[in-house]
Amino acid sequence: MAGKAAVSQVVFRPHFKTHQSPEIGTWFKKFGVDKITVSSIDMAEKFAEDGWRDITIAVPVNILTLSRINKLAKTIKLHLILESKDTLKALATKLTQRVSLWIEIDTDARRTGVSWRYVDDIAALVRSAKRCPKINFEGLLTHSGHAYLARSNAEIKEVYLDTVNKMINLQERLMAKGLPKPKLSIGDTPCCSVHNVFFGMDEIRPGNFLFYDMMQLQITSCSEEEIAMGVAVPVIAKNSDRTELVIHGGAVHLSKDQIHRDNSACFGGVALAKQNGWGPLIKDTFVSSLSQEHGIIRTTESQFKKTKIGDILIIIPVHSCLTMSLMQQFLVLK
Amino acid sequence: MAGKAAVSQVVFRPHFKTHQSPEIGTWFKKFGVDKITVSSIDMAEKFAEDGWRDITIAVPVNILTLSRINKLAKTIKLHLILESKDTLKALATKLTQRVSLWIEIDTDARRTGVSWRYVDDIAALVRSAKRCPKINFEGLLTHSGHAYLARSNAEIKEVYLDTVNKMINLQERLMAKGLPKPKLSIGDTPCCSVHNVFFGMDEIRPGNFLFYDMMQLQITSCSEEEIAMGVAVPVIAKNSDRTELVIHGGAVHLSKDQIHRDNSACFGGVALAKQNGWGPLIKDTFVSSLSQEHGIIRTTESQFKKTKIGDILIIIPVHSCLTMSLMQQFLVLK
Repeated sequence: MAGKAAVSQVVFRPHFKTHQSPEIGTWFKKFGVDKITVSSIDMAEKFAEDGWRDITIAVPVNILTLSRINKLAKTIKLHLILESKDTLKALATKLTQRVSLWIEIDTDARRTGVSWRYVDDIAALVRSAKRCPKINFEGLLTHSGHAYLARSNAEIKEVYLDTVNKMINLQERLMAKGLPKPKLSIGDTPCCSVHNVFFGMDEIRPGNFLFYDMMQLQITSCSEEEIAMGVAVPVIAKNSDRTELVIHGGAVHLSKDQIHRDNSACFGGVALAKQNGWGPLIKDTFVSSLSQEHGIIRTTESQFKKTKIGDILIIIPVHSCLTMSLMQQFLVLK
Repeated sequence: MAGKAAVSQVVFRPHFKTHQSPEIGTWFKKFGVDKITVSSIDMAEKFAEDGWRDITIAVPVNILTLSRINKLAKTIKLHLILESKDTLKALATKLTQRVSLWIEIDTDARRTGVSWRYVDDIAALVRSAKRCPKINFEGLLTHSGHAYLARSNAEIKEVYLDTVNKMINLQERLMAKGLPKPKLSIGDTPCCSVHNVFFGMDEIRPGNFLFYDMMQLQITSCSEEEIAMGVAVPVIAKNSDRTELVIHGGAVHLSKDQIHRDNSACFGGVALAKQNGWGPLIKDTFVSSLSQEHGIIRTTESQFKKTKIGDILIIIPVHSCLTMSLMQQFLVLK
């Protein structure tokens, strides 16, 4: 990812919500990364303490945390995002430290951001931001969350191109209104994984690509071999009537994020532990149900017979960011 | 709940996975509770350190933790549950300390346990357990998880009576085989909330009734006024095109447990903060989508207009146990 960003000469600002780990942060430093993305003031404070000096909080700024923001902005280059006049007004009134500001644009993922169609509203926000002495207006930021609805590389590329077209279109229309060229920041993992060049953009912010997971595999962002996180769980019960294995591994370990498979919810794939990691996903075998601490695995007759109480299975999470946030600790294979 | 248990002269062994809080543990002590349920060896160790001396781990025992179990069983009366010969064999070989043992029975919730129909298998397990010098065989334990499929008090009562009938039937059939009368332990929150007497049972183990939540409200285990947990979240964005509010409150705060409402997933109800708590659930307003840190609230035009960026809303979780496990901290209203 760092290599691809370098080729396109865009800032590589990885999303650290995926791992939230100072240790893993050091792996990024080896690739020259010195700018990061997080999704809360808590994480921003934590990574600032860990020495990171250029951090974007990529969730619309919570105006109730402005005293913490002022404090943090004393020590680092802090980037905030927003989408509303009211938030901007609160910032203009209460900021005592200089911050960098991005306007969040909705390129039709329909979560947060001003719709890219509302050029006048966006232009008004930019002008207000530029009038605020404590704000350094940076540009426009978007997250193409609808890439997660894709089911092929072609569909992800379509989302990527659509996103880029909308952002560049908006950029041009703002410039036509006499505004200086705003920077453009994009960066979901599916688009950044499938696409290799990011011309016209200024920054990418993928996070999940570090581990990938069953969700990314389903939408074809990654191959099975690229998935780099598994949760080791013990088999605690077997039910031969239903060909089900029960693991001590539940919602508190894996999260309840789900994909669908064989007319069932799927809360994780299953692999066998090996000396240096794990083997391929076991065919027709997946976590079909999760309670707080229990998981139920549907499997084949043959895998059921081979599996013993006390065996360790490796669960490949549906959403590695949530799993990491829950587990909080990890081992590396060596 | 303590009062109801006393009337029926059953042991009240509340499930502490709901709160996992030593502080809340002290509230139970005031009601004479000195026996508790947990769902992992981690929790058992934690509450043992906190002074609890009689603890059931109500998940089939993980035989890979037997050294921790032996250590813990030195200091407390530790109850384990199991459903398989293989687990029992591992216990018989590796236990160095005396433990209490329950056989988990599946009364058709279809998660864990030996089906109540398999009397011969259960009798064989009981006989094997009784031969093991380190095992004090206690009885039969079940969790009627299928009570969560109910949608009325009548349906929950049906599950309760069905469960009790199956457990007593099994108890009698084991005695007919010459085995001594096993104790019976039941205890999901829906059944224990809706039913007032537990005759024939020896122990109840509800947990969630402490807080209740949207799930329990949906299945009619509780009234809205009985729900005792809310998550205070700030409004960070508003989308007038979709009449949606965006909160900083996501899967890492609320969990992704969901119920269904108005043809959508519902990840929480919404109420307004008040001086001493919160008001009623706002009509036609609920958390319809959750990312890692963002939540989207669908609401009415009138509530949308009244809500400002920076307002605090109270989210009533779908599953309070998971929310507590994620948040880890809480405030009481006073």
